[in-house]
Parts: sequence; structure tokens; C-alpha cells
Amino acid sequence: MQIQKDKIVAFNESLLAEHKDSLSQLSKKHQNLDTIIDTIAAFNIAIPSWALGAGGTRFGRFGFGGEPENLEQKIEDVGVINALTKSANAISLHIPWDIPKDAEAIKSKADSLGIQFDAMNSNTFQDQENQEHSYKFGSLCHTDKAVRNQAVAHNIEVIDYGITLGSKSLTVWLADGSNFPGQLNFRRAFENTLASLKKIYAHLPADWKLFIEYKPYEPNFYSMVIQDWGTSHMLAKDLGEKAYTLVDLGHHLPNTNIEHIVATLMTRGMLGGFHFNDSKYGDDDLSVGVIKPYQLFLIFNELVYGMENNPAKNPIPAWMIDASHNLKDPLEDLIQSIEAIETAYAKALLIDQKALESAQMENDVVASQRILQDAFNTDVKAILAEARLRNGAAIDPIATYRNIDVRQELINERGMNNAATGL
Amino acid sequence: MQIQKDKIVAFNESLLAEHKDSLSQLSKKHQNLDTIIDTIAAFNIAIPSWALGAGGTRFGRFGFGGEPENLEQKIEDVGVINALTKSANAISLHIPWDIPKDAEAIKSKADSLGIQFDAMNSNTFQDQENQEHSYKFGSLCHTDKAVRNQAVAHNIEVIDYGITLGSKSLTVWLADGSNFPGQLNFRRAFENTLASLKKIYAHLPADWKLFIEYKPYEPNFYSMVIQDWGTSHMLAKDLGEKAYTLVDLGHHLPNTNIEHIVATLMTRGMLGGFHFNDSKYGDDDLSVGVIKPYQLFLIFNELVYGMENNPAKNPIPAWMIDASHNLKDPLEDLIQSIEAIETAYAKALLIDQKALESAQMENDVVASQRILQDAFNTDVKAILAEARLRNGAAIDPIATYRNIDVRQELINERGMNNAATGL
Amino acid sequence: MQIQKDKIVAFNESLLAEHKDSLSQLSKKHQNLDTIIDTIAAFNIAIPSWALGAGGTRFGRFGFGGEPENLEQKIEDVGVINALTKSANAISLHIPWDIPKDAEAIKSKADSLGIQFDAMNSNTFQDQENQEHSYKFGSLCHTDKAVRNQAVAHNIEVIDYGITLGSKSLTVWLADGSNFPGQLNFRRAFENTLASLKKIYAHLPADWKLFIEYKPYEPNFYSMVIQDWGTSHMLAKDLGEKAYTLVDLGHHLPNTNIEHIVATLMTRGMLGGFHFNDSKYGDDDLSVGVIKPYQLFLIFNELVYGMENNPAKNPIPAWMIDASHNLKDPLEDLIQSIEAIETAYAKALLIDQKALESAQMENDVVASQRILQDAFNTDVKAILAEARLRNGAAIDPIATYRNIDVRQELINERGMNNAATGL
Amino acid sequence: MQIQKDKIVAFNESLLAEHKDSLSQLSKKHQNLDTIIDTIAAFNIAIPSWALGAGGTRFGRFGFGGEPENLEQKIEDVGVINALTKSANAISLHIPWDIPKDAEAIKSKADSLGIQFDAMNSNTFQDQENQEHSYKFGSLCHTDKAVRNQAVAHNIEVIDYGITLGSKSLTVWLADGSNFPGQLNFRRAFENTLASLKKIYAHLPADWKLFIEYKPYEPNFYSMVIQDWGTSHMLAKDLGEKAYTLVDLGHHLPNTNIEHIVATLMTRGMLGGFHFNDSKYGDDDLSVGVIKPYQLFLIFNELVYGMENNPAKNPIPAWMIDASHNLKDPLEDLIQSIEAIETAYAKALLIDQKALESAQMENDVVASQRILQDAFNTDVKAILAEARLRNGAAIDPIATYRNIDVRQELINERGMNNAATGL
Repeated sequence: MQIQKDKIVAFNESLLAEHKDSLSQLSKKHQNLDTIIDTIAAFNIAIPSWALGAGGTRFGRFGFGGEPENLEQKIEDVGVINALTKSANAISLHIPWDIPKDAEAIKSKADSLGIQFDAMNSNTFQDQENQEHSYKFGSLCHTDKAVRNQAVAHNIEVIDYGITLGSKSLTVWLADGSNFPGQLNFRRAFENTLASLKKIYAHLPADWKLFIEYKPYEPNFYSMVIQDWGTSHMLAKDLGEKAYTLVDLGHHLPNTNIEHIVATLMTRGMLGGFHFNDSKYGDDDLSVGVIKPYQLFLIFNELVYGMENNPAKNPIPAWMIDASHNLKDPLEDLIQSIEAIETAYAKALLIDQKALESAQMENDVVASQRILQDAFNTDVKAILAEARLRNGAAIDPIATYRNIDVRQELINERGMNNAATGL
Repeated sequence: MQIQKDKIVAFNESLLAEHKDSLSQLSKKHQNLDTIIDTIAAFNIAIPSWALGAGGTRFGRFGFGGEPENLEQKIEDVGVINALTKSANAISLHIPWDIPKDAEAIKSKADSLGIQFDAMNSNTFQDQENQEHSYKFGSLCHTDKAVRNQAVAHNIEVIDYGITLGSKSLTVWLADGSNFPGQLNFRRAFENTLASLKKIYAHLPADWKLFIEYKPYEPNFYSMVIQDWGTSHMLAKDLGEKAYTLVDLGHHLPNTNIEHIVATLMTRGMLGGFHFNDSKYGDDDLSVGVIKPYQLFLIFNELVYGMENNPAKNPIPAWMIDASHNLKDPLEDLIQSIEAIETAYAKALLIDQKALESAQMENDVVASQRILQDAFNTDVKAILAEARLRNGAAIDPIATYRNIDVRQELINERGMNNAATGL
Repeated sequence: MQIQKDKIVAFNESLLAEHKDSLSQLSKKHQNLDTIIDTIAAFNIAIPSWALGAGGTRFGRFGFGGEPENLEQKIEDVGVINALTKSANAISLHIPWDIPKDAEAIKSKADSLGIQFDAMNSNTFQDQENQEHSYKFGSLCHTDKAVRNQAVAHNIEVIDYGITLGSKSLTVWLADGSNFPGQLNFRRAFENTLASLKKIYAHLPADWKLFIEYKPYEPNFYSMVIQDWGTSHMLAKDLGEKAYTLVDLGHHLPNTNIEHIVATLMTRGMLGGFHFNDSKYGDDDLSVGVIKPYQLFLIFNELVYGMENNPAKNPIPAWMIDASHNLKDPLEDLIQSIEAIETAYAKALLIDQKALESAQMENDVVASQRILQDAFNTDVKAILAEARLRNGAAIDPIATYRNIDVRQELINERGMNNAATGL
Repeated sequence: MQIQKDKIVAFNESLLAEHKDSLSQLSKKHQNLDTIIDTIAAFNIAIPSWALGAGGTRFGRFGFGGEPENLEQKIEDVGVINALTKSANAISLHIPWDIPKDAEAIKSKADSLGIQFDAMNSNTFQDQENQEHSYKFGSLCHTDKAVRNQAVAHNIEVIDYGITLGSKSLTVWLADGSNFPGQLNFRRAFENTLASLKKIYAHLPADWKLFIEYKPYEPNFYSMVIQDWGTSHMLAKDLGEKAYTLVDLGHHLPNTNIEHIVATLMTRGMLGGFHFNDSKYGDDDLSVGVIKPYQLFLIFNELVYGMENNPAKNPIPAWMIDASHNLKDPLEDLIQSIEAIETAYAKALLIDQKALESAQMENDVVASQRILQDAFNTDVKAILAEARLRNGAAIDPIATYRNIDVRQELINERGMNNAATGL
């Protein structure tokens, strides 16, 4: 399905007066509001193809109606989100779940909805039917060269699919690791992984980037080959200029100061990608901003600062939502995540950086804290709404989605019992 | 399949001399060795029916050959473990995975292998085909009375199956909880759960026990209705004398002092059951003793002390292994777990309790530490082997299992591609 | 020193117009704003006497000028905070640091500043000069009866001081525990603690309450006798109706769902007191709201709900700030903490409880989340300012404090090098 | 005081027969036992000067008798430990606590006891009397150049003291960080720290090493400038070939896989130093091996493997105990720590590396686990005793220490109430 723009416009009408009043109040206090609105309006986050169906846990999965069954339908779903928010103009594919059988048809489908192809994702953490070698004991790190070669070949194949579709980057997330002390020789696994990555890197087109994700645990519960940003960074430095570290918010040990990691990576121009989600315990993959919105704001503070103070020429990171939707309609969930990201971004843009620097230089801790909190405590709903409005999207995307009854229409089109590929 | 005893005896022969030498050395240093051997020889741990197939994570599952396809085969697998260890004379069933279609046949199968039926487990964390109401948003805590009633009825059904088979207890583990702040009214959920449990409790035969498990997170990632032992204890006290708390080692927040919880519950006679596994990060469900063997020893120290100093008349807890076997042959994994449990138990029995009490009363911290460490550092392999030998089991169960080539025989019997029910 | 009210009024003038504009905007959207302002205006939080000097860590302490040297000066400092905020009308004393030599003089000093005496705190975690027995190995739990008796007698003495001053409650926080496995017999320690508490409880006047604090670790790093709310609750139930659990935000293991604990305790009417602070790693004792403001809001959501839905007749908890001020001027830090608490409280009062209940009953997770977030994202600065204004306090207490130059005046009065008693 | 060798010999006599019996049993099973004994006999761990007095927490400190009051007495204490264990032939000094007023006298004192001077430690986390600038807001990272210069000058002074005494390395541990979001600009702090370290590095003699310690939190509770090994490694690479990372076991977030970090650093030849202690919650600084002895063994497995497979030419790390002795006699505590370290080391040496490699290459997880556990479960007490015996030290150092009544003699010499410098 595709959302008709006039339905959005019609629903916006009912909200316009109140929005404009809020906006004018806010603009009285913030002189640079227009710039901030433009920045938010220009911001886009990629949607992963595997987040459009019902997520699950090892204990079970509860489906819902109208899940997308193929790549075309996934692109349509992203189109719905983008129509409502104008902040999701890209999809990130996972191979082999999203192998484009007819690349041209897929591309023109995406074009028609204004959707681009963001980073490609390889999958060497599951075995596919008829796969020659199993990844049960690892992929790029495996003790058996034949398995490593198979995993390298898969990644090269993913790059090739990406070239066809116009993607410009490959994200490698490895589940490789071990469940038991003794199972794995850490150093052999590291060297194998590096050697495998070098082969993949060698196949990377000149204008592509390689993003190396890290994760301390899960699905392996004793060790993960790329357990932290330090390991990812070490590998990226060894590979070359096209390799970067990718930060996924959920991939950290309890209490990690993630914003500090972001700052460190940007100092060296090494932050390549960013996966958004939220969590209380581990890699819970909850909607962005539902547990620790202040931490998200602090991270955006570093991102904003890093993009404005950029001697190391850190590229603009590839933004993606990476959550699991076990209970909510994924489209609503993704819209809530986009709003949470833009809320944090807008608040970070409100920070009075000059006053902050001055307070920091004087070690006026009370004032520094207050400057951040003043920005965080500002209600920025009107900023987001105005950014969307200027882009022709919905003042209130969730309310509009429900008003238009999108899910019911998807169920009508697709039925109740189909299940999307993914986790 | 069933292991022929003469094969065990034959393989034991090859290990006997070295074993007897180790044993005699150990007995020189420990006068009460015989008593300890008898205690270990009398010890049994239940095997959960769902641990006999390949476990998995939300990212995937790697099967292996010869998995049991039905309850009979699961009982046979436990029979194999028990033949080799004589420490696993019971199976714990999970309904609806293990509904006994012909209870008499199942019972006589179990009898023939010397296997009993331990605690019954209900399942209200997954939806079954043709189930009227979904547990997506909870079961005993659900806002909708119809769902609660369905979950209560299921638990009552599980008790009834258990009565038929000769089980004497029901374990209730609830996945109920919420993923998002605001989703659940904590207090309403608690009251609903208590009311539902009361209905289940009312159906409990006079000689049964009810075990209430707790868990801080997973599969819900913001809140769990029974998040900790305090909540479980509160519910159990409200229900009555047949209700107890069940401790699962993996169900705790990082760094929890679990042995302290064990001690507290036993002070009040409220420790009803115990699920063994090990973990480094969360509910990793690794083989017992692979990550924190010293913690396991400290827990057994409390269990030994609590059973010997028992004014509150804590019953002997229902012991069960509850792990997930993602990478290893489950039968080997379970045998390693049994050995780890008995190792910790034997070491705890070696603690010089009199000397410990005396050091504690004088606050001689150095001596107290040393007494525990001396016991822990003792090599108790010969104690376990002797206990098994006296019971007619294997000196070295893993080596015997491999020597007999059990897995290959299971594959021959059952094929390569069947999959057990479970997670 | 004492703040002259006209200085506050004068500074308020400069902020009045902008404040009134913000307030009128807010009132357009929230019909019950007046009630909320009144609730906030009536709210008071106790200030602990030991938080008025420089805090420290085991690595060091950095003093600052004008620290209070005696109880009178501490009361004056609370008077300053209260004059600026009208939200801190009580002080919580710690004995022996705050032994009132002349109780009548102290009382009239406090009266003159409108300050009351909140919960009394005993100290059995440090040895005092000329103390007969050491608390090195515990106090109420000690293996030696003489030590336990000394600790009991100290607590009784603290109650007696409290009676003299008009306090109505005793908070018992025990550092008792162990650093090494084996050092302590958990069960003996628990029984000793319970017996000691019974003696203290017996001395409690009829209209007093006893608050039992819990903490998982620090200053003992293997076990703490009262490690969690479950243990505190068990002790309180054993003691009787005047005994309650006290929750300190910093006293939890990583990732604990504290709001859930609050809800559970209130269900049973057992939440007696509340210590506010914030932390990222452990008991960091940072200013309230600087790390996890959303968690604080969720906790207040439970508190508000619990006070409005109170069949178990939970008393209004004793509120206290309990933080350590290592880097900031403590008075500024406490004012920031008060503002953070009232911010969370006001936002919680803005939650549309009816809509929330309705969304919860329908398991509309998206709507439930949104209702909470809408309240949280509201800028409530004007509510707090108006509440203070109605009470004759400062629109902007920090700015006023700096405008009046309070710290310099305190330094002038007290000098640069005095040090307050405390940690 | 100095321990007379004949007292050690005399006490050894009483233990000799049992020891020899245990040793001969062990040698029957392990053919390379002699090599292992030699390796342990050659092993030495430095003792930090600040660990010889009573440690404390922010809540208090409990002294004991006979604490060393000056550097000479600290060296004597290390001499006592070394006489009993022959495994502690070095002391690590902390400036300004241990400024050698008469370097020659100090050196000859140390020489006479066979004690060397290990890594020097600077202190920029506390202010000293008459210090011009405060470190309240940082040292090497400070916003004010004058403070940075002072901290650099202090480190240079520490190097100079070390040169005089024959030390060959400087350990830099920075408390620098922030307590509140906003307080610190992460990137400015990082750049300042790097620039400061470069100045210190420039002063380093050609045969010295610089060890950069990392720590995620405490004494700063929001951020630490060098929060993890990745940051330390980045700094060390920037400085040059003499700079290395130092791992302190207590300086990690919950659940960190430290052995993996050790392996990674050794792959690159970057592991310069190692601080031993143990902990359950944070940087608890408990005696080595009391909480997680298996983790310690796994770490030693990596160290042993790394030293034997060393293409990157990692130097032998500088070993040091870094614990806090709040409850035990520090000399007994340090002896227990040495025994725990050597226990883990000896067990790691017992691992059948060939069998392990073979099992790993075949992904035989069950066998890999078992090989490690077999080594870990071996009782190696006789190995340690024999290593000490061959060196002329005590079979049972703790029992000997008590038999000789060392502490009483120290009290007689030094009195009851002196307090060592340190934390």
C-alpha cells in the first residue's frame, strides 16, 4: 500500500492551530529555531528490512497481521513510514533474507517511493538450507579454512548485490565467539577474522565503506571475537581507510559510557555507523528512547559536537534503527523510534555550546549541568512537527497512521498469517 | 536405546587402578570420606525434558542428529544419563510439549529405566496452535480475565497430568511482564497474578508443593511480574504452606550474591527448588560450573549448612538442571553439568564446619577464607568416581559415553533431522 | 547567615515577566495546572546534615570554603536552601556527628528558620574515639554480644536525642556484612541482626516509625546483611507495624527496576522512606536526576499512583536527599537535586491516569508509552517556579543564590578551611 | 624486623613429610612437574608500598597495630613477605607518599633484603599540602594549562626518583574524569591528556617503560578520561614503543571478559603491566582469588599462552598486587594473594596445550572444557610448597607467619597507633 498525501494533509489540518501556537512560543525563546528545524527536516534514518515483521525472543514470537512477505512489501512499509515522517528515506537490506531477484524492479519500486538502499548486511550467524558448511562454530573466525572462505564469499556476494542496488556500504556483524572457556583460541580467532576481513575489504569498491560492529555477548555467552569498540577499531585500522567502527547502542556491558566512546571514535574520524535502540538489561532491542532518553540526548550532544568540530574528518555516520518489535506494530514502533531520535537530536541542537564551553573552561559544574538540562527539558515537539510539515509529512505521524487505519489496510492486502523474514 | 551395563563395567576396568590409587590418597587426608561418598552416591538431579534437544538463541538454532522426538525417547535419554551417572533418576516435564498420551505406557517405560517424574512445568509464555486467547500480553497477570482463566486452567491441567504420572510438585515460571514503561500497571499485574495463583494452589493435592520461580528480565525487557526472590517469597507466604520459592541460578541481576539469598530462604524454610546452570552475562543457560565454579561451591556450602541446621524445616529442595545446549551434545553437556554439581557438593561436604565456625566467631577472616579454599582446592574427582562405582555407574561417564558411541547409536535409531520440542 | 527575603523578591522581579508568560502557555494545555502547582508547593524534602560539607571518595576529598562546623551552622545552611526553595523544611541528623549539646537552643534555632527534625540516623559503621568495642566486624550482626549491645544502646540513644528534638522516626542503615566468602555465617548474622533490631524497636515511641535501609554492597564487598528489599521487608514484618522499608536509589544492583520495587512495597503499605540521589555505576551519590531522569519520573509515577490508590494505607514516605558533593558547592547541588525531584514529581502529576489505565487495559502499548512520554517531555519549569513564588521563594533559586553571593558570605563568616562532619 | 631463616626451616620440618607425600603423588600424574615447579619458583610479584597499611572505604578505616610509618618499614614488610614466600622480591613506590629522603640508605636497605624497585607510581588524584594548583577538576586533562604543567612536572619528578632507585618503569593511573554530564568536554580532555603524556614520555629514559592504566569509573562517577583498554591502547600507540597498556583486574565494567582483553593486547605486544586483586561488584580491591578464582585461572591461561606464543614480542608484564586491606592483616592478605596468583599460574601451566589445540581445531567443545577443568581441579598446593622450599622459603607461609608471631613483633617495634600512608 501507499499513503495518499491528501489524507496526511487532511489530518494535519485538525492539528495545525495548536502546533503553530506551540511553535511560536518556542521561537520566542530560541532565536536559531529555524536552523534547527531545517537540520531536523534534512535528517534521515535508515530502516532495516528485518524490523518490519514481528520480532521474537528465544522463548517465542507473537505474530500480527499484514507482515511483509517479500522485499517489495518491505520497501512499501518503509515508504509508509517515510510518507508520514519524511525521515526514513532508506532501507537497509539483509542477505540472504532480501536477495533481490529482479534488481531493476526493486530499484524502480524503491525509486517510486523515494527510498534508497543504505548499508548492506551479511548473515553468517545462521545456516541457510543447502549451505555447504555450518556456522555453528563461527564464520570469519572459524578454525576450518573452508568455512572461512564460504563466509568471505558470502560477504562478497552481499557487496555485489549492494552494487546493483546502489548501496555504498557493508556492515559486518559477527556472532562469532564461544560459549565455553577453552572452546576458542582467542588469538587464532582474531587472526582468522582479520585475514577474512582483509579479503572482503579487498573486494570493496573505492567509494564504499566497511562498518565493523562489536558486541560483548549474545548469541555467544562466553566470548565474542569482536567484543568491544577497541577490537573493532584495531581491525578497522588494520584494514584501511574505508573501514570504520559501527556503534549499536545495545551492544555494551552494563553502565558503559557510550557517549564517551562516540566522542573518542570521532576524535579519530572512525565512527562510521550508528544503530539505534534502547535497553535496560542487555541487547533488549526496545524502541529508541523508552528507557534512557537522557543518555540518548548526551550521545547526540557528542554527535552534534563531533560533526561541528571535525578535524579528523569523520564522515556523517550511517544512521539506522535496529530494534525488535515483539509487542507493538513495527510501523508504529519505528515511527516512535524516529520521533525519539529526532527529539534527542533537536534537544542537542538547542544546547548553548558557547555557554557550555565557557562553563567547562571554568569548571563551573553546576552551570554545565544546567545548560544541558535546560536543553533537555525543552519541549521540542513543535520542532519535529514543523520539520515534518515543511517536508509534507504528518504533524503527528502515529495519530495519522491510526486515523488512516494503515495496519487494517495492510492486513486486507496481505492477510493475517504471513511472517516476515528476520529474527 | 538403553546402555548395557556390561559395557560400562568393561570400560571401568581400564580406569580402575588409577582411580583406586587416587581414592586411597584422598582417604588418607579425609577421615569422613566414606560418608561423603555415600552422600554423593545418594544424590540425584532431575533432567528437564526440554534440555535433551538442541537449544537455541533468538539468532538461530543449530540442530544435531538423534534428537528425541517424543516423550518416550526423552525418557530413554535420561535413562542413558542415569545409567552412566546414577545421579539423574528423574525427569521434569513441560506441558504441552510432553503431554503423556498413554500415561500407563509412559510410566512403565520410566519405571523400567528407574526414572521418576519430578516437578511438572506449565507453559504460558508461548501460544499453542488453536489456543483461544494469546499470552502476548501476559497470562496469570493479564488484564483480561478470560486470558487469566485460560492460564489457570492450563496449570490445573498440568497438575492433573502430574498426578497421573506420580509427580508431586508444580513449578510456575512466568514470562509475564512488560517491555515498555507504562505498558503494565505493576500493582494490578501483581494482584491479578496472586489471585490466579490462589486458584491454582487450591487445586494442588495435599502432598504436592508449588514452586514459584522469579526472574528479573527476559523475555520481557522492562519489567517481570515476579522480578526477584522477595516478590516470589511474598506470593508464597500469601498462598500457604505448600508454596515455596524456586531459585534458578541464571535469574539474577549482575553480581547478585545468590548464596546469601539461599541462606535467607532456608532460614525461613522457604527454598523449594533449585535450577542449575551457569552464566557470565544474563540467563545464558550454560553448562553448570563453566564460568563461576567457586560461586557454585559457596552456594553448596549454604545448602549443606542449611540442610544440617534446619530449625525452619526447609524441605530438601527439588534439584534440576536447567540449561540450553546450543553447541554441545546435550547428553554430554548434562553429564558435565552433573559432574560440576557433584564436584561443588563434594567440596562443600569437605569444609571443616567446626573450624569454620570457630574462625568466624573470632573474626579470623584469614582462617575462614583458607578453610573454604582448602576444601575448594581439593581434587574430588575420586569421590565422584567412587560414588558412581558403588552405584554401578561409570568411573568416567563422558569417556564411557564416547567409548560406547551413544550418539551414533541414537542417530542410527532416530535419524539426523528430527528436532526435540523445547526452546 | 540568613537570606533576607527582600533580596529574593528583588531578584524575582527580573524574571517575573518571562515566568508568567511560560506559565500562561502551560495552563492553556493543562486544565489541572493549579492543583499540580499546589501539590508541588506543599512538597518538602529533608536535607541530611552530612550533605552540607564536602563529600569525598576513598581516594580523596577536596574541601571548599564556608563549610558548616556545627549543628547550628548546618541548620542555617538548610535554612538557606529552604528560603530559596520552600521545599526543604526539615533536616535529618546523624548521631554522633550531630549530638545536640543544648537541645532547646537547637530547637529554637530550627524553629526560627522554619526547619523541623526529620528521621534520626544512627552510625555503627565507624568507630568513635573512646568507643569500647570496634565495629570493624559488624554491629547489630556482630558475633560478640557485647558489640551488639553497644550498637543497640547507641540506637536507643539516637532515639532519645530524636525525642528531645521532635523527630518521629529512626533510620537504620547497616554497613554490616563481609568482604570475604567464609568470613560471616549469613544465618547467624541475620538472626543477630533481627534480635538486635527487636531491642531497638522495643524502645521506639508509639508515634515513631523505624526505617530499615538495604544495600547490596559497599562498604562491604562480598555480602551485606540487609542486601535487598526482600530482606528489609522480612525484617520489618517480623518487627511490627511501626517498621518499614526505606529505598535509597543508589542501593541497587545494576539495571534494577526500582520503580517496580516501589510499587510492590506500596501494595503492602511498607514503603516508609525514600533517599534520593543518582548514579551510573554503583552508589555514586550524584545529584538527583543527572544520569537517569526518566527513571526518576517513572518512580514518581509509582509514588503518585500509590498515594492515590492506597488500600494498604502506605504512609507518605519520608523523603530525603542523600548524595555526596565532591565537586559542587553542596548548597547549589542540593538545590539542583530539589529541582530535579520536583521536576519528576510535576511531570508524574501531568500523566493522564485515566487515559493510561484505558490504554493499559487494552494493551495498547504504543499509546501507554506515549502518554508517559508526553508528560515527561513537557517543560515544567514554570510549575516549579510558580510553586516557589506562591510560597515566597525564588523563581530561580540557583541564580538567586549566586546573585546574593551566599557562598562568599558563608566564607566570610566561617572561613576557608573548616570541614563539616560526615563522609 | 627481619625473619630469621632458621625459624622458617624449623617450622617447615613439621610439615615436610606430608608435603613430600603430596608432591610424589602429584608427580606420578604429571611428568613435567619439575619444570612447573621451577617456573613457579622463579616467579615474583611486586608489592605496592601503599598496601602495607590498613585500607579503607569512604565510610571509614579500621587501623591495626604495627603499621609501617615510613619507607624503610615498608621495605621491611616486603622483606617479611619475601622471606616467607620468595615470590615478592620487589616493591612499587607511590610518590609523594614514598619520597626517598636518603636514596642511598633506602637502596642499601632494600639490597640487604633482596628487594628491588618495581614500577614507580605518580599521584595526581589528591592534593598535597602546599600544592599550588588543585587536582579537584583533573590533572593531565585539566582545562587550565598551569594545572597540566604541574601534573606533568610531578610525573617527571617521579621518574627522577625512580632513576635514583633503579626502577625501570612509570605507571600512570589517572583519576581524571567527571561526575556530571556536561562537566567535561571529552575530546578536549582526551587531547590535553595525550599532550601531557607526550611531555612525560619525552622524559622517559631509553630503557624505561610507561604503563597506562585504565578504569571505567571511581573516583569519578560519570566519565573517566581513560575509561577502557581501547583508550589506553590508542594513547600508547600515539606515544611510542616504550608505552604499554596496564590491566588492573578491578578496573572493568560488570561481566567483562578480561582474559580476552589480555589475549588481544598480547597479540599486539601491548600488555605492559598487570595489577592483581579480586572483586564482586566494582573495584572492590579484595585479596586475589577470593571471588573468581576460575577467571584468574583463565587469565593465566592467556598469559602462559601469550608468553609461549609471542611473535609480537610482548615483554613479560610487570606483575603487581593492588588490593586494599580493610579487615585483614595486610601481610597475611598479601601472602594469601601471592598464593592465589601462583595457584592460578601453576594450574595454567598444567593445561595440556597440545590436547587443547587439537580439541579446539575440531570444535570439540566438551573436550576443550574438560581439559581446562582438569587442570583447574588439580590440587597444586604441593607445587607451590615445593617451589618455596627450593627457594628456602616456607612450606606454609601463613602458618609460619603466625607461628613466628610476626605481627606481635611489629607491634612491639612500632606500636599500636601508627598509620601507613596510602588510601
